[in-house]
Amino acid sequence: MTSRYFEDWTVGDSFETRGMTITESQIVDYAMRYDPQPMHIDRQTADAGPFGELIASGFHTMSVCFRLFYDMGYVAESNIIGLGLDEVRWTAPVRPGDTLRCTVEIVSLTPSRSKADRGTMSFKLTARNQDDIDVMHFTSTCILKKRSAAG
Amino acid sequence: MTSRYFEDWTVGDSFETRGMTITESQIVDYAMRYDPQPMHIDRQTADAGPFGELIASGFHTMSVCFRLFYDMGYVAESNIIGLGLDEVRWTAPVRPGDTLRCTVEIVSLTPSRSKADRGTMSFKLTARNQDDIDVMHFTSTCILKKRSAAG
Repeated sequence: MTSRYFEDWTVGDSFETRGMTITESQIVDYAMRYDPQPMHIDRQTADAGPFGELIASGFHTMSVCFRLFYDMGYVAESNIIGLGLDEVRWTAPVRPGDTLRCTVEIVSLTPSRSKADRGTMSFKLTARNQDDIDVMHFTSTCILKKRSAAG
Repeated sequence: MTSRYFEDWTVGDSFETRGMTITESQIVDYAMRYDPQPMHIDRQTADAGPFGELIASGFHTMSVCFRLFYDMGYVAESNIIGLGLDEVRWTAPVRPGDTLRCTVEIVSLTPSRSKADRGTMSFKLTARNQDDIDVMHFTSTCILKKRSAAG
């Protein structure tokens, strides 16, 4: 795990994360806490619904994919804070047994005008399943330290 | 809990959710799974950092606030699927012991052109803490059943 600071990135840089398999129990456990809709927690109802089986909460998919991004280690030392997300889109259902991996591309880099030791980075994350179908994407914006601020 | 279908909403409708207190163990438990940055899991490092204590993962705050929204019951029977989120902004830190409650306002309603039994609804959710400070907002878009599709 090598952290990359603000100056270490270039717009257009991209990488792929490792994969993670989303199990039925993960889907139900997450949803029971945060998004207890029948489509996420009740297999009997979900089987008879539009997707034909349980599907993961979109908030669960986001959380798992952020973890896959974070585990790359690139911002482990350099991230100051996340500012927000734009254009979160859940484009296909995530089903029990699906394996997700993410492609991340740097889309903007803006040095701070008020603080010389940092800058703002935006990246687009796209999650795909084992059939190479896009299931979710979003753009995330965070403040990264410059190397001069490395602790 | 009374579900509201597509026709039951008007742009400008708003409501407030109940509150929920975010504890330190919730912050650490969530972050250990999905967002294990030191600012979320390591009190010693967080105390010495820019926020002076642990803060919640933004993904955790989103998940908790979606649950507060869902628990109103308004879309329990009527929601078909979430499409996405726009302009997610984490505007102030969420700290252990903070109590969050959310204001929800309907911002758009668009009947489906291809399917007569449904329409698209967008709402803006704003989360505030016990000091009435905005900590997060986002706009969520979902497809709701019309009453004619109530099962």
